[in-house]
Amino acid sequence: MSEQRILLAHGNGGRYMRELIAEIFARHLANAVLNTDADAVHLPGLTGDIMVTTDGFTVQPLEFPGGNLGSLAVHVVVNDLAVAGAEPRYATLSAIIEEGLEFDVLDRLIASFARAARENGLQVAAGDTKVVRHAEGGGLYLSVAGIGQRASSIPLGMQNIEPGDVVLVSGPVGDHGIAVMLAREQFGLSGNLRSDSASVLPLARAIWNQPGLKFMRDPTRGRLATVAHEIARATGLDVMLEQARVPVREEVKSVCEMLGYDPYYLACEGRIVAIASPDGANRILQTWQSLPDGEGASVIGLVENGKSQVILETELGGHRLLDELEDDPLPRIC
Amino acid sequence: MSEQRILLAHGNGGRYMRELIAEIFARHLANAVLNTDADAVHLPGLTGDIMVTTDGFTVQPLEFPGGNLGSLAVHVVVNDLAVAGAEPRYATLSAIIEEGLEFDVLDRLIASFARAARENGLQVAAGDTKVVRHAEGGGLYLSVAGIGQRASSIPLGMQNIEPGDVVLVSGPVGDHGIAVMLAREQFGLSGNLRSDSASVLPLARAIWNQPGLKFMRDPTRGRLATVAHEIARATGLDVMLEQARVPVREEVKSVCEMLGYDPYYLACEGRIVAIASPDGANRILQTWQSLPDGEGASVIGLVENGKSQVILETELGGHRLLDELEDDPLPRIC
Repeated sequence: MSEQRILLAHGNGGRYMRELIAEIFARHLANAVLNTDADAVHLPGLTGDIMVTTDGFTVQPLEFPGGNLGSLAVHVVVNDLAVAGAEPRYATLSAIIEEGLEFDVLDRLIASFARAARENGLQVAAGDTKVVRHAEGGGLYLSVAGIGQRASSIPLGMQNIEPGDVVLVSGPVGDHGIAVMLAREQFGLSGNLRSDSASVLPLARAIWNQPGLKFMRDPTRGRLATVAHEIARATGLDVMLEQARVPVREEVKSVCEMLGYDPYYLACEGRIVAIASPDGANRILQTWQSLPDGEGASVIGLVENGKSQVILETELGGHRLLDELEDDPLPRIC
Repeated sequence: MSEQRILLAHGNGGRYMRELIAEIFARHLANAVLNTDADAVHLPGLTGDIMVTTDGFTVQPLEFPGGNLGSLAVHVVVNDLAVAGAEPRYATLSAIIEEGLEFDVLDRLIASFARAARENGLQVAAGDTKVVRHAEGGGLYLSVAGIGQRASSIPLGMQNIEPGDVVLVSGPVGDHGIAVMLAREQFGLSGNLRSDSASVLPLARAIWNQPGLKFMRDPTRGRLATVAHEIARATGLDVMLEQARVPVREEVKSVCEMLGYDPYYLACEGRIVAIASPDGANRILQTWQSLPDGEGASVIGLVENGKSQVILETELGGHRLLDELEDDPLPRIC
């Protein structure tokens, strides 16, 4: 393809679109199921409980330290299935491309999407591309639906949570939020921090069937504070987090201090928050700490009788209410 | 909700987003499967061959005579499943909302989406919302994945097509393209034409198991000419279309004459192109003509030995090659 940038004609259903799909999307995403000539395709071999999720991706910049829009899209969808106890199997991919996007950038993002999909057993079964005019898009937006099969034998969910249950996190929080913010260079800051964008499938799989596991969620845009609020609201219980035990990297802490951010309100894209019974929590922690992506895992709090509040026990022993997030400090974070 | 327009904070995962989802998305789309608190949900009752499709929607204006972005999104996804011989069952919905969009508009579009979904047996199982800054979006973009179950006992596909097969269309072509164009008022034209945006599920269901049916496709962005090209390219055969038999409304013809458009290159959103054996074609035509949306159905051409060309036999008896679409006369048509 000789054009260097996306034209409106790449979205019109004709020759340019056919070539774009063949040379970028089909080339990277090819698998036994994908058929770019079909209106709908058959998904073979699905048995048992079928699970579905969807997410849209608008992160800016499109490429950032530790990931990009393509790999992030796969990780988030894989993670949504993984924390729900499901093995990822198939995905659909809808791309909304802004006129003027460089082919090379699109090629890198879709190659990255394809690599992450392969690594996580996800086959892209169907896709769609649209092109919108300059200043009607953000370079590239992706929407992905993920289809999986339930593999967890424990029915996970917030309804299982009881007073006395333990809150765990699989690693440091806030890396994605700060890495993307630094990549924007809007504050004149820079650093070596990388996004934690990654598949949590190995971490989730390792504990799917461990006794005492009650609920998992990936604290993405929801952040740690929001996941805690979701639990508090659904159960009527309080979530107590211990500041001293919540893992936060030094670089994230520094940026938060400079700009007045709170690490509990920063996005993570490769972490799990889990709730487990007191008996089960220790084994989950040990399992995670034995895995490459779980070295930084920690018990960070407790669920207690209360009034649907999220309370932070500070390092000085005080208590601070963590309110539900309102204003958005960082739009287009995922 | 007191705000009149979408703010960036409506996309941040916090309180505003929770309220937006509850008051617009969950309220309209509520069904037994949808769980806005879950990362992934279980799809009950899927058996047999599971089929999937996806489409992105960027039509502008968001509302046009005969439909809107919401109903169009459902129709296209339902139609992609229907022409592949599948009953629609579940959908996922990813919404990318531009800062500043009026709540009332969003509410109308999602209500319309919900109504069309109910009418077509489609339950929204999972959703996601993102908000992008002003001038990084188009008001609202939707991406939908549709999951269905194969109901056709005939294996439909272009591989079935042979010389002598008959080309049918279920109604007039080009209505959607011209209706959307008139709604933009960019040429100072107006008219009473309505988009054909509709579910073709009743038309598809009626012929799924009729002997002689070989292939169906909805000529959306692909337009009639592009569907014919896809067939010609896949089979190595020629597709001959008879101008006198291709149904085109007078108003569409007039606008095409004024602006130099060709109706074979205009989008349809409620039509089926079918290929059938000569024996089967007549019964399919009669079946369609007996249905409310098929009154305008017509046999429009033949598949013949040739060189992968699409040929129009004009009303004067001449022959004109219909080239593959290149430039885009109308971006953001769907």
